[in-house]
Amino acid sequence: SRSIRLAVIPGDGIGQEVVAQGLKVLGAVLPQDVKLETKEYDLGARRWHATGETLPDAELESLKEHDAILLGAIGDPSVPSGILERGLLLKLRFAFDHYVNLRPSKLFPNTATPLAGRPEIDFVVVREGTEGPYTGNGGSLRTGTPHEVATEVSLNTAYGVERVVRDAYERADARPRKKLTLVHKNNVLVHAGHMWKKIFDAVGEEYPEVTTDYLHVDAATIFFVTQPERFDVIVTDNLFGDILTDLAAAVTGGIGLAASGNINPTGAFPSMFEPVHGSAPDIAGTGKADPTATVLSTALLLRHLGYDAEAARIEEAVAADLAARDETPRTTGEIGDALATRVAG
Amino acid sequence: SRSIRLAVIPGDGIGQEVVAQGLKVLGAVLPQDVKLETKEYDLGARRWHATGETLPDAELESLKEHDAILLGAIGDPSVPSGILERGLLLKLRFAFDHYVNLRPSKLFPNTATPLAGRPEIDFVVVREGTEGPYTGNGGSLRTGTPHEVATEVSLNTAYGVERVVRDAYERADARPRKKLTLVHKNNVLVHAGHMWKKIFDAVGEEYPEVTTDYLHVDAATIFFVTQPERFDVIVTDNLFGDILTDLAAAVTGGIGLAASGNINPTGAFPSMFEPVHGSAPDIAGTGKADPTATVLSTALLLRHLGYDAEAARIEEAVAADLAARDETPRTTGEIGDALATRVAG
Ligand SMILES: CC(C)[C@H](C(=O)O)[C@@H](O)C(=O)O
Ligand SMILES: CC(C)[C@H](C(=O)O)[C@@H](O)C(=O)O
Repeated sequence: SRSIRLAVIPGDGIGQEVVAQGLKVLGAVLPQDVKLETKEYDLGARRWHATGETLPDAELESLKEHDAILLGAIGDPSVPSGILERGLLLKLRFAFDHYVNLRPSKLFPNTATPLAGRPEIDFVVVREGTEGPYTGNGGSLRTGTPHEVATEVSLNTAYGVERVVRDAYERADARPRKKLTLVHKNNVLVHAGHMWKKIFDAVGEEYPEVTTDYLHVDAATIFFVTQPERFDVIVTDNLFGDILTDLAAAVTGGIGLAASGNINPTGAFPSMFEPVHGSAPDIAGTGKADPTATVLSTALLLRHLGYDAEAARIEEAVAADLAARDETPRTTGEIGDALATRVAG
Repeated sequence: SRSIRLAVIPGDGIGQEVVAQGLKVLGAVLPQDVKLETKEYDLGARRWHATGETLPDAELESLKEHDAILLGAIGDPSVPSGILERGLLLKLRFAFDHYVNLRPSKLFPNTATPLAGRPEIDFVVVREGTEGPYTGNGGSLRTGTPHEVATEVSLNTAYGVERVVRDAYERADARPRKKLTLVHKNNVLVHAGHMWKKIFDAVGEEYPEVTTDYLHVDAATIFFVTQPERFDVIVTDNLFGDILTDLAAAVTGGIGLAASGNINPTGAFPSMFEPVHGSAPDIAGTGKADPTATVLSTALLLRHLGYDAEAARIEEAVAADLAARDETPRTTGEIGDALATRVAG
């Protein structure tokens, strides 16, 4: 009989609540013969306050023993900015070499968008996850004085760019429209930008059926709001991907619906799935959090592990649930129940 | 009698056409006793193709002799990406220490916005113009090989951040809502981000009437489309400002309306005013370019030189012209004529 060894990091704020619904739906969708073995990890603000630890080595080692990780949300106003982000979330992405940060964006029927005219939106951003300005490479001199100098270094390697660009071509090639857009800022960030563009063009020769396009990041934000239907697959750097996927979430109905996967396609380390939203401490414990983004993240998780049919069932359940939504407010648990019922039925 | 010595760099594509309208409106709005002395500089793609030069020292020196610079647009597909941007546009911003890149965003009545519900939008972005990832500090090793490593270094100084933050507080303090939002990414870019935040907080103590706020750049893009009315003045780094102001232009009716000033508030060097849009080679010479962004840039120019009443007249003329616009297409020249008539009348 098959099994999925799943590490669960509920994290902070609404993390606990939304992860519970994700697990509920996972349990409901999986065939009887698949055993879901979960192990919970107590990481995040509480742990840091109690012990000063963000991600001890022993836990990092233990996490490796799993097939995948489901993460809720990390961060709390009581913890200085950067500590949990870099000490836990980014540490996991880097330690497990999650070089494909996959973020699909789809405007479902019957959901609110701030855009007039409800354009058709159905694209996926392949965000590089292990390089760029996220490497923690920087420092400051004469810190806190009027003579302070602070640097942040964006590190980019041909090795790192080539593998994520190739992954994006594969995804574009597998989609009906077969279109791939590179987003960078190669008129200013010429060294990194030209390397990205050169590799993008070179790998493209192996995918003659994929139509390609290049946009500067500033121009890309314009098209996200004026012409989002032009995008199919987007590949971009770590920081530009961070910015663009929040904007993408906003135009497709909000971060309550945006799923993501931090993927190591080689399988050398467990991949990690998480909603794009944060810990939303202002609504934690109120039952107001929408668990849909987490549930959609479990679909990405299942697809990564080869459970394609089950992943599709979850996505169909979400689409059906959104189509049936009316103004009646539902709690986090009620939305989870509704989705669990749909995937089981 | 007074005079304005104005350097004019029409540049590429539609640059020539829109600058002609800007000059037309400037001529019409200035009092009889103010002499407008213009000197045109042939810089841009044509010059580069002909001579290989982007901005020779002699011309840089000569530009210093002016009170201000009016620039149309720079860039052409025939020139490799980065050459004119870095060799001309950024060179001017850096050589003339344009540390305040001022970009107002306003949703005028009767203009198209991609946002449903037409929110009230009236904010100004104070983008740092001389530091950050724009310093050209980076390089590449083993270029063009599978072992290439490329870096881009964001350089930030307390000196550079303090002066632009102070300028932004001054602007916020002078506006009715007195609200200033710092945008950065200090949970990841901790060195530069923490320095920005510390200086932002410290300078804020001198402006007790200004309400302050901090947003990560990814979250800021969400609010630009879901709640743009929350912004009054925004201060941010060079790259985040580049991205946010294109998005701001998109939600306020497009880059046909977005004006900007590259300002050296000390007056040590001439400030430079330009539309946010590019050279749009696809419509160059067709008369389809909207000169409004350039005309609004001349209003920023006049205000910088102390001609406040004339600047206000231009802004009122643009508002009135937009309010009166119907579906009838007008050429670049016709829009310029209409605006010139309004400011004179
Ligand atoms: C919390 C933060 C470090 C993170 C990022 O910048 O990657 C988040 O914004 C995201 O997009 O997952
Ligand atoms: C052309 C380019 C170098 C420039 C920039 O990135 O600053 C432009 O996008 C702008 O916003 O003025």
